[in-house]
Amino acid sequence: MLSRMKTLSCLQILTGCTNTEARVSSILKYCNSRCLAVVPQGGNTGLVGGSVPVFDEVIINVSSMNNVISFDKVSGILVCEAGCILENLISFLDNRGFIMPLDLGAKGSCQIGGNVSTNAGGLRLLRYGSLHGNVLGLEAVLANGEVLDMLGTLRKDNTGYDLKHLFIGSEGSLGIVTKVSILTPPKLSSVNVAFLACKDYFSCQKLLLEAKRKLGEILSAFEFLDEQSMALALSHLEGVRNPLPPSLHNFYVLIETTGSNESYDREKLEAFLLSAMEGGLISDGIVAQDIQQASSVWHIREGLPEALIKAGANYKYDLSLPVEKLYNLVEEMRTRLENLATVVAYGHLGDGNLHLNISAPQYDDAILAQIEPFVYEWTSKNRGSISAEHGLGLMKANKILYSKSPAAVNLMASIKKLLDPNGIVNPYKVLPQSMIH
Amino acid sequence: MLSRMKTLSCLQILTGCTNTEARVSSILKYCNSRCLAVVPQGGNTGLVGGSVPVFDEVIINVSSMNNVISFDKVSGILVCEAGCILENLISFLDNRGFIMPLDLGAKGSCQIGGNVSTNAGGLRLLRYGSLHGNVLGLEAVLANGEVLDMLGTLRKDNTGYDLKHLFIGSEGSLGIVTKVSILTPPKLSSVNVAFLACKDYFSCQKLLLEAKRKLGEILSAFEFLDEQSMALALSHLEGVRNPLPPSLHNFYVLIETTGSNESYDREKLEAFLLSAMEGGLISDGIVAQDIQQASSVWHIREGLPEALIKAGANYKYDLSLPVEKLYNLVEEMRTRLENLATVVAYGHLGDGNLHLNISAPQYDDAILAQIEPFVYEWTSKNRGSISAEHGLGLMKANKILYSKSPAAVNLMASIKKLLDPNGIVNPYKVLPQSMIH
Repeated sequence: MLSRMKTLSCLQILTGCTNTEARVSSILKYCNSRCLAVVPQGGNTGLVGGSVPVFDEVIINVSSMNNVISFDKVSGILVCEAGCILENLISFLDNRGFIMPLDLGAKGSCQIGGNVSTNAGGLRLLRYGSLHGNVLGLEAVLANGEVLDMLGTLRKDNTGYDLKHLFIGSEGSLGIVTKVSILTPPKLSSVNVAFLACKDYFSCQKLLLEAKRKLGEILSAFEFLDEQSMALALSHLEGVRNPLPPSLHNFYVLIETTGSNESYDREKLEAFLLSAMEGGLISDGIVAQDIQQASSVWHIREGLPEALIKAGANYKYDLSLPVEKLYNLVEEMRTRLENLATVVAYGHLGDGNLHLNISAPQYDDAILAQIEPFVYEWTSKNRGSISAEHGLGLMKANKILYSKSPAAVNLMASIKKLLDPNGIVNPYKVLPQSMIH
Repeated sequence: MLSRMKTLSCLQILTGCTNTEARVSSILKYCNSRCLAVVPQGGNTGLVGGSVPVFDEVIINVSSMNNVISFDKVSGILVCEAGCILENLISFLDNRGFIMPLDLGAKGSCQIGGNVSTNAGGLRLLRYGSLHGNVLGLEAVLANGEVLDMLGTLRKDNTGYDLKHLFIGSEGSLGIVTKVSILTPPKLSSVNVAFLACKDYFSCQKLLLEAKRKLGEILSAFEFLDEQSMALALSHLEGVRNPLPPSLHNFYVLIETTGSNESYDREKLEAFLLSAMEGGLISDGIVAQDIQQASSVWHIREGLPEALIKAGANYKYDLSLPVEKLYNLVEEMRTRLENLATVVAYGHLGDGNLHLNISAPQYDDAILAQIEPFVYEWTSKNRGSISAEHGLGLMKANKILYSKSPAAVNLMASIKKLLDPNGIVNPYKVLPQSMIH
């Protein structure tokens, strides 16, 4: 395909008028007939190069397709165009007493089409589950320009193969998502945030188990960060002060509860914290007294990617691992790297998702040689995922076999060929090139 | 394929020893090489003929593959073989403080492989979502005997296309599910059940909206039945007495809450009921005082399929519809049928899932002519699903275009051909034959 592809300068085609899927369709039909490659782009906030052109692909940016199509307040079902910015949808719903089932640091610029295409995880997955559970329908345009209407608005529909799941998390490589139907949960009035210190990783794990049992249905986030993460936040994030002074603790856990009754939830959280304190699981902690305090501890956790950028070079890994083994990798990495770089670990502990970052003053092949392929081999050996939520994009397409079997990857390649025989939609991404051609 | 298929008497192949997927694999390899059709079978509790042989298919029954492989009590992740009976898994988890995220009337004989293959819905979907959200991994054997290992045990894994979703809900027509990895929620100690009467359908809808708002995170079921359903239960189910005497009400709603604190949950439910009573949404009601009372009202709802069988002939429809229009169909059906038959309506109102049943002393073409294609056309016109949770199986394969676009069905047929080029796995099911050959 590539050799037949005509060179075309990187052209941004904006689709800003009505009947937008028809415009996407005609662009794709044109490009497919001439074997011109395209790259779908939304907020362009991905971390693995999934939405950037590699050579001379035509960029199809869906940002102007940003209308809410409908919202049903009985069922909580929202239907909107792919270019809606996540934060705008959050505000739209907030006014109507609902929330989006996903939330992430990039909400100010990421778009729902991109969220769906990358199966974005984020901060609420622990409570509301993944987009495979929450997305009720999609409209997608295939490589040949065919508009595939899968835009159901039903919670239950068992009529044939559920094709929309092919487009959730395939990073725009099977077609371009143009509309999304999503189930949104009611906004609950009572939100509590606690920020806690643990002396070791084992206590963090035990605390997670206890939180699931005792907070049960109101638990909405269980995030962790290590001492190195806190030190980084204190050095590089503006206005951040140590929430549990005077010194640093080995581990921190942020727990959020969301429920419908302020006094019940607060009592439940306090009883849980008292028992955790008595059991020696936590060594210090605070419960946010107002929304400012809650925001300021969330800001420590959510600001870590920014702090890492400010600190210099950063090798980022987004791994899923069995919770009990997750921190072993961090410790082994520290042993390997010694003083070469700082290992910074945080993540969504409630989901077994570790964000492992190696921070150094500058990029250095000697550092990289200590990290890769070790990090992938270790993850693979422990049946983890080398990309929990960021996807594979361009940067990790060749690493897929660390997490998926050859038979599964072969089937993915067959499906790619079936839906996009000329290989024009987001080439060089997700799957190793050697398996497609 | 069919003409080339050798005639083979209906042979039940039991797979009862270790390394069972290898046995399934060798059976499929053998059958595929000879173009012999197979039908996968579990508990055989489906309602649309998805697991019954049509002509001379070889039955591959997975009942003997009934081992639990692992259970991780920190993450709640259960891995088991496809033949595990749902009720056995429920008991296994109960002893460990967890529950299955799905529950349905047929639990005593249905199997997890079949549940996954049909994307079974049931009574807990409102709270825990569908199997697309809860199943973390699968092992499936393809038509050519290839064992596809997708048996991840991670909540988050964005490495390539999420192939397992092709097998969830494809009714065994793309391969045979042999192992399942599933996320199980912690068992919460406090369960309350209320059984309420509403004067009209509008009140049921309004009550649902209020329940979502006020019971929020503890709402775990919202079922409804109409007067005709209650009359049927009283006539045909042993030991059932009118729970809200003396006379019958137009509508009944069963609300269940599940939470972690008995006194908070009870207070919350009582406050909700008081406000619903004052607002005129409910005209009568009881809160179950113990587990026997709770079981007896659940028995009315869950016993309705049995009562319908005892009442005579029964035309069954399992529809998803927008909640506000759902009961219009029931009323139109009553007008059409007049005295020819009794229209009995109940279902999972919280999910927009109507079980519409037309009960008559015996099957009668005059009745059927009044029902079909009207019921499908009405559902299609209102963008509903003609099979919310039962699947299409044999009985509804030709009806798929009422709920899915021709482009989507064509793509399904292409995927079927890609995975099963000889068409040997569960033929005549799910897709119209005309679109496969």
